[in-house]
Amino acid sequence: MKIKIDRQSSKGLAKQIADQLRRLIQEGELRLDERLPSTRLLSKELEINRITVTQAYKELMAEGLVRSGVGSGTYVSFRGGASDSTQSAKLDRSNYASRFSSGVLALWRDEQEAPQMGPSSEDPIHFATLVPDEKYFPVQAFRDCLDEVMGREGSRLLQYCGTSGYPPLREYIAERMREEGIPASPEEILMVNGAQQGIDLVLRCFLSPGDKIAISLPTYHNIFPLIGLLGAGAAPVRLTDQGPDLESLEAAARDPAVRLLYSMPNFHNPTGVTSSLAHRKGIADIAARYDLPILEDDFEKDLAFLDESLPPIKALDRGGRVTYLSTFSKSLFPGLRIGWLMATGDTLKALLLLKKATDLENSALLQAAAYEFCSRGYYDEHLKKIRVMIRKRMEASFDALSRYMPDGVTWNEPRGGYALWIRLPEGVSSRRIYERGREAGILVSPGTLFTYQGSDPGGIRLSLTKTDENEIRRGLEKLGRIITEETRSLKSPGPATEEPSQHL
Amino acid sequence: MKIKIDRQSSKGLAKQIADQLRRLIQEGELRLDERLPSTRLLSKELEINRITVTQAYKELMAEGLVRSGVGSGTYVSFRGGASDSTQSAKLDRSNYASRFSSGVLALWRDEQEAPQMGPSSEDPIHFATLVPDEKYFPVQAFRDCLDEVMGREGSRLLQYCGTSGYPPLREYIAERMREEGIPASPEEILMVNGAQQGIDLVLRCFLSPGDKIAISLPTYHNIFPLIGLLGAGAAPVRLTDQGPDLESLEAAARDPAVRLLYSMPNFHNPTGVTSSLAHRKGIADIAARYDLPILEDDFEKDLAFLDESLPPIKALDRGGRVTYLSTFSKSLFPGLRIGWLMATGDTLKALLLLKKATDLENSALLQAAAYEFCSRGYYDEHLKKIRVMIRKRMEASFDALSRYMPDGVTWNEPRGGYALWIRLPEGVSSRRIYERGREAGILVSPGTLFTYQGSDPGGIRLSLTKTDENEIRRGLEKLGRIITEETRSLKSPGPATEEPSQHL
Repeated sequence: MKIKIDRQSSKGLAKQIADQLRRLIQEGELRLDERLPSTRLLSKELEINRITVTQAYKELMAEGLVRSGVGSGTYVSFRGGASDSTQSAKLDRSNYASRFSSGVLALWRDEQEAPQMGPSSEDPIHFATLVPDEKYFPVQAFRDCLDEVMGREGSRLLQYCGTSGYPPLREYIAERMREEGIPASPEEILMVNGAQQGIDLVLRCFLSPGDKIAISLPTYHNIFPLIGLLGAGAAPVRLTDQGPDLESLEAAARDPAVRLLYSMPNFHNPTGVTSSLAHRKGIADIAARYDLPILEDDFEKDLAFLDESLPPIKALDRGGRVTYLSTFSKSLFPGLRIGWLMATGDTLKALLLLKKATDLENSALLQAAAYEFCSRGYYDEHLKKIRVMIRKRMEASFDALSRYMPDGVTWNEPRGGYALWIRLPEGVSSRRIYERGREAGILVSPGTLFTYQGSDPGGIRLSLTKTDENEIRRGLEKLGRIITEETRSLKSPGPATEEPSQHL
Repeated sequence: MKIKIDRQSSKGLAKQIADQLRRLIQEGELRLDERLPSTRLLSKELEINRITVTQAYKELMAEGLVRSGVGSGTYVSFRGGASDSTQSAKLDRSNYASRFSSGVLALWRDEQEAPQMGPSSEDPIHFATLVPDEKYFPVQAFRDCLDEVMGREGSRLLQYCGTSGYPPLREYIAERMREEGIPASPEEILMVNGAQQGIDLVLRCFLSPGDKIAISLPTYHNIFPLIGLLGAGAAPVRLTDQGPDLESLEAAARDPAVRLLYSMPNFHNPTGVTSSLAHRKGIADIAARYDLPILEDDFEKDLAFLDESLPPIKALDRGGRVTYLSTFSKSLFPGLRIGWLMATGDTLKALLLLKKATDLENSALLQAAAYEFCSRGYYDEHLKKIRVMIRKRMEASFDALSRYMPDGVTWNEPRGGYALWIRLPEGVSSRRIYERGREAGILVSPGTLFTYQGSDPGGIRLSLTKTDENEIRRGLEKLGRIITEETRSLKSPGPATEEPSQHL
C-alpha cells in the first residue's frame, strides 16, 4: 500500500489514511472489488493502533467507497479511474465526489453497477418487469369511485388529511389484516407513497451509517440503493426453496452490525419462493432471540392463486418486532402510489415522525377513491379475475418450461405473484442469457440485478405480468433454444467458456 | 467531567469517551443545552490527542446528542434524565436509543423540543397554520378535470409513469418558469410528493452527517427534522427586512462544514419578507464565490398580490447551483401532494436517483388532472380570486394592527403569501403570547416554532388562510389586549419578568 502517515500533521491519523485511500480508489489505483489489507496488517505496516485503521475504513464505508465482504474483509465498492464510455448518463466524478452527499455517492455507484438495459427489438415479448398489465385495469369502475368521492367529500379530500392517512381506508386495511391473523387496529396503519417509500422509512428508522440489514439474496433490487444511501451494508442470507436458510439467518443476526432483518415470505421477488410455516416461525424466533426488528414485505399478498395461505410473520410476532408492508401497486394500480405499513409501539411512533418529516402525508383523494373501490366489492372482484389470469400464465409457463428447457434448468412453482425464477445450468451466465434474449426479442431480468454487488446467482426472473399464454409459449421456446446453445458451448472445447463467441 | 480512560482496553479512546458522554447525556447528568468542555481542555485533562476528543464529539453529533453552537462550542442537544410527564406521545427512551437509527433519535429530540399545541376553545380564530381555506377550493372544476382525464387516458394514468413525472404537466411548469426568467426545459423538472419531499431530496443530495446547511432564522419549521435526521446541523443566518443579511450569510458560507444554502426569497415563511433584488444577487454571488449549492424554496410563488415581481434566484444563477422548488399546496390543493424541483446537470441526475430510490415516482393521475385544470385556464382564474382574498385580509390585518397593537409592536407588509409576522416588544415571550392567545381562543404560531433550537426570535406568525376580515379584526383586537398586558407586566415591578403570573 502506498500510504504514508505524518505524525507531525495536525490532521488525525485515521483521516490521513482515509484521505489517501479515497484518492487511490477514486483514481482507480484500488479497483472495484479489490480487497483492502486487513486492519491488522495495515496497522502493523504503519506502526499505528489497529483502531485507527478501523476508523479510516469506517469513514470510507460511510461514503460508500468500500464495503465489508462476506467473511470479514473490506473491499472496494466504487469504480474509479478512467471514465467508462459505455455509461452515457454518468455524472462528472470529480465534481460529484466533492459536491454531493456520501449517500448520493453510494447511489451513483449502485447505478453504475446495475445492468444497463440496452435496446431490444421493436415488439419484444416482455418478461422483464413486475408492472401489472393495464389491459386488466378496471378503469371505468375506478373512475366511478373517483367521481363519487369527489362529489361527496371533494373539498375535504383536496385538503391535508393527516400523516397517518385517510381513516376509512386504514379501517378497511386493518380489518383485512385481522382476517389474516394480525391483530391490527386502524391507528397502527400508516399509509405511504407505495411500498418503496415504506422500505425507505423502515430503513431510515433502524439503520445508521455502518449498520447492516440481513437479506436473503437474490432480492428486490430497489432496496440496494436505499442501503447505500444510508451508508449501511447488507449481510447476505442464503435462500432455500422453503425460505431463508435459518442457520445462515442466525449467523447474520449474530453480527452486531446487523440491526434489521428484511423478509418476503410470500412470493419472494425474484424467486417466487413462499416461506414455509416452519421458516416463518424460525424467522420470528431468531428476531426474538437476537432482539432484532423485521421488515416483512408482503407486496403481492393478495395475489395468491392457490387456496391455502400461511400466516404472515407479523401474525407470529409476540414482541412487536415486525413492521408489516403491503401495497395496491401489484394487485390494483401502481399509479395510485398507495402502500401501507403496520407497526406498533415506539416503532409506529418513529415511522409517523419519519413520514411527516419526509413528505407530510399521502393524497387523501386517491385513498378515498381506493376505499370506495374496495368497499363496493370491486377490489375482490378484480382479484378473482387476475388470480385466474396469473394461474393460467403460470401453468402455461410450467408446461413450456418442461417442453423447451434443456437438462440442468430447474424452477419452482410459485403459489402466487407474478415472478417465476429459472435456475440456469451451472456456469451459464444470467447476464449472457439476458443479453442474447434481448437480441432475440425476449426480455427477461438477469439474476445479477437482484444481488448486492452484482454477483451472478445463476438464475433469471420471468415476470408474467405482460405476456399472455401464446407469448409465454413462443418466448420460452426461443429462450429454451438460447439456454441450450449456451449450455452446449460451455461443454464444447473451443471458444473461451466465459464469453461464448457471437455466432453461436 | 467524570470521564476515565483505560489505555489497556481494546476499545479505542474516542469510543471510550463517546460512550461515557452518551451515558451522561442520556441519564441527564449532562443537561440539554449544557456546554461540553472544549476539545482542547478535555484532551489536556485526559492527556490524550485533541483529535481523539474531536472524534468522540463527532460521533455524538452524528447521533444527534450534541450540536455545534454559534461560535464554536459543543452543546448537549438531547434532553435526558427523568421522563417529562407533560409529553404524552413520548417514546421509551432506553428502548429507543438502543434500537433505532441515529436519525430517528434526532427526530425524536426535535419532536420533544417543538412546542406542543395544547387544547383551545371550541371555535377559535385560527391564525396558526398555513393550510389553505377549503371554502375557496374550486372542487367542481377539478372534479370535471379528473373525470375528463380518467375517460381519456385512464389506464395509462393508473400505471407507472416514470420517475420524472407526467410529461405534459412538466412542460406546462417549464413554460411558466421561462416566463419568470428561468430557462427551464421539461426534462429539468422533477415532480415530487409536495414541497416537503423536495426539501428532503435536496438535503439528502447535499448533506452528509456532520455537514451544515445555512438558513436564515426564523424559518420553515419542518426543515429542522430533516436536518436532524441526516445528522447535519444548521448554520444560522440573520434575516433582515430586505432578505438574509449578506455578511452573516457570507460568514456561514466560509464555514467549511456548510454544504448548502437554503433560501426563501418570496414571502418568506414565517416572516413574509421578500428579498430585494440586491439581496437575490448577493445570495447568488456568495454561492458562486464559495461554490455552494442553493435550495430556493418558492412555495408560494403564485400568491403575489402586488403587481411587480422580482426574478427568482434561479434566474440569476449562472453556474447551475440553484435547485428551485415550488408546489401547488398553498396556491391550489394541498391534498394533491404535487410539488416540483427544477435543477440541471449532475444535480438533476442525483435528484432523479434519489426520487427513484425513495418512492419511485408520483401518481400520474393527479398530475394529469392538475395539468388539465391548468391548461383549461382554471388555475389562473383561481389565482386571481385568492390573490384578491389574501390582499383584503392583509389590508384588514394592517388596519387592525395599527388600531390595536401597543407601542413597540411592529410588522412588515408582505407582497404576497399568507404569512404576517408580528415583532413583539423586547422581552415579551412569543411562547407566552401563544399560550395566552390559545386560552382566549386566538390561535397563532409562536416564533419559537421557527428557530433551530427553540430560542425565541421575539415574534409570532399570523397565517391568514382561515380567517375572514371580521375574524381578523376581532382576533387582533383580543391579541392586542393580551400583548398590551404582557408588555405592561414587563415594565411593572412585581412578578418575575420571565414568567408573568397566571392571573394577568
